[in-house]
Amino acid sequence: MKALVYHGPGNRSWQDIPEPRITDSTDVIVRVDAVTICGTDLHILKGDVPAVEEGRILGHEAVGTVTAAGSAVGTVKEGDRVLVSCITACGRCRYCRTGMYGQCLGGGGWILGHRIDGTQAESVRVPFADTSVHPLPGAVPDETALMLADILPTAYEVGVLNGRVRPGDTVVVVGAGPIGLAAITTARLFTPSHIVAVDPAPARLEAAKRLGADVLVGAGDDPAAAIAELTRDLGADVAIEAVGVPETFELCTRLVRPGGHVANVGVHGAPATLHLEDLWIRNVTITTGLVDTHSTPALLDMIAAGRLDPAAFITHRFDLDHMDEAYRTFSDPKTSGALKVVLTRR
Amino acid sequence: MKALVYHGPGNRSWQDIPEPRITDSTDVIVRVDAVTICGTDLHILKGDVPAVEEGRILGHEAVGTVTAAGSAVGTVKEGDRVLVSCITACGRCRYCRTGMYGQCLGGGGWILGHRIDGTQAESVRVPFADTSVHPLPGAVPDETALMLADILPTAYEVGVLNGRVRPGDTVVVVGAGPIGLAAITTARLFTPSHIVAVDPAPARLEAAKRLGADVLVGAGDDPAAAIAELTRDLGADVAIEAVGVPETFELCTRLVRPGGHVANVGVHGAPATLHLEDLWIRNVTITTGLVDTHSTPALLDMIAAGRLDPAAFITHRFDLDHMDEAYRTFSDPKTSGALKVVLTRR
Repeated sequence: MKALVYHGPGNRSWQDIPEPRITDSTDVIVRVDAVTICGTDLHILKGDVPAVEEGRILGHEAVGTVTAAGSAVGTVKEGDRVLVSCITACGRCRYCRTGMYGQCLGGGGWILGHRIDGTQAESVRVPFADTSVHPLPGAVPDETALMLADILPTAYEVGVLNGRVRPGDTVVVVGAGPIGLAAITTARLFTPSHIVAVDPAPARLEAAKRLGADVLVGAGDDPAAAIAELTRDLGADVAIEAVGVPETFELCTRLVRPGGHVANVGVHGAPATLHLEDLWIRNVTITTGLVDTHSTPALLDMIAAGRLDPAAFITHRFDLDHMDEAYRTFSDPKTSGALKVVLTRR
Repeated sequence: MKALVYHGPGNRSWQDIPEPRITDSTDVIVRVDAVTICGTDLHILKGDVPAVEEGRILGHEAVGTVTAAGSAVGTVKEGDRVLVSCITACGRCRYCRTGMYGQCLGGGGWILGHRIDGTQAESVRVPFADTSVHPLPGAVPDETALMLADILPTAYEVGVLNGRVRPGDTVVVVGAGPIGLAAITTARLFTPSHIVAVDPAPARLEAAKRLGADVLVGAGDDPAAAIAELTRDLGADVAIEAVGVPETFELCTRLVRPGGHVANVGVHGAPATLHLEDLWIRNVTITTGLVDTHSTPALLDMIAAGRLDPAAFITHRFDLDHMDEAYRTFSDPKTSGALKVVLTRR
């Protein structure tokens, strides 16, 4: 089969490799019907995630069809359409038993396209199938369901739920890439009074506006002034960091009001400065997190019920064997305007 | 009357100044029967709190007797014994109406000995009396009640409640000064499995042990190794920072397990480094805060009911006019062994 293989920093190829096989009784093999590329894959290709070894198939998001199931798998069978989530969970460890699947101690967590071969391939082996894949109702199209593999639960759990967005809040989302836009979409579920989107790219601010941001802060605008005006100088109730660099994190800690929440969603490669000399007295809560995907079933229900529509995140579509072109498009959003790219089996 | 007056960095004097007078109808004047010195007063004397102007009377903790009440005061009257809390609250602003008195926007918050004259005096004016002083039951002695003016609610709210200590947790308290010891005492209310105290001073670790810490980490010991042994390498559920320097804050972020809480209680004068490159994926919650004192009535009830006994925090007692000696003793805990010093009216 074909797969996207990492060959060290800066090097990838869409190449032939052997089909995956069942290696454990709890595995399934899933034929990939739709797959996408994540900003994290670009981090890996820059060499920022040293745990990823050369020869690894990348990708941690897919929708597909079960083609084989290990003898211990009880909830899905050959022919079932499933969501392959970015988080795999043993279902048995201390963390899984409290719904913190992202921190799984039993060999799960974020492993696909990281510690084991991933989804950017014609087929993928998924361990712990009973607690890691989600059967899909027929009414939800592949590419819609695909947005539940990572960006929607990540933005919702790590941004909106960790940030404890409440009705009437002023929420600022710093970074209007796919994760920031998903945070805007899922923040609206709690009916905040204002959603402020901060991003230097006009096209991304335009997308933020379409998805529900009512105040847009672009390059050269002052986010603190915009928020002060909305909040009588108090600051934002919730600041969601969706970029992953020290400057945007530090901006969030300046934009939040006393008693407010800073929810970090960005993947960081460097430390930030925490201005405790200002913050110690301000009752601020800062959270970090890898998604647990405990919200995935509820988000899927909301999509099926028409309460959420993630179609707006998808800007480009390719056949699966145009993986190279898809990577080039996704890697250069300034030129392409790409948000999420979807690749599907012909 | 006599009062302890701040005359700029390094300079204080116990000197004659005019008696305070009612200036607003919501004020009371309280004759000071018992008062203490806080680590924050030492920070002010070092010049670390620039909002404190020369000529200010220091102190934000007292127990005393009401000697005059403004015409609008309805809940206390002349002759009542009251606790003067570190936090004054207008009771009417957005923050007060949600119990966040420490962030009062109506002229309260931490103002005594900071923005207005404080309690290290024979008498003190307290604004917003109905929502700022606490009438005291006769059964609770002055010096016991005095521990409720700051250290007990601060350690409980900002350390234990913000840190969400739960039964069975492993809690590490970094810094075993008065605030750290109060955190140990109030963490026990939630029956954690282990309380680890970290402090280089043997006398403070001894006090931590008496108050309920079961693992002591002194100078030259490795706190990470001690906690790894207790928690099968997971880390602490809750790390409480009770020192106020970057090194101890950063230590707390290293000692906490994935999904755990770092509760900062220390007063910081410098930024810390936040290692987001490690923490982004670890589901960590970091909180800061000034005390709100919303827990003061409950803590007072617990003392009256015999469920809390803060007497162990008090190591030295002085007459009020020995303020200089009390400051010298409190400023040099290595020599004096001082935790809290109490000064009382003869």
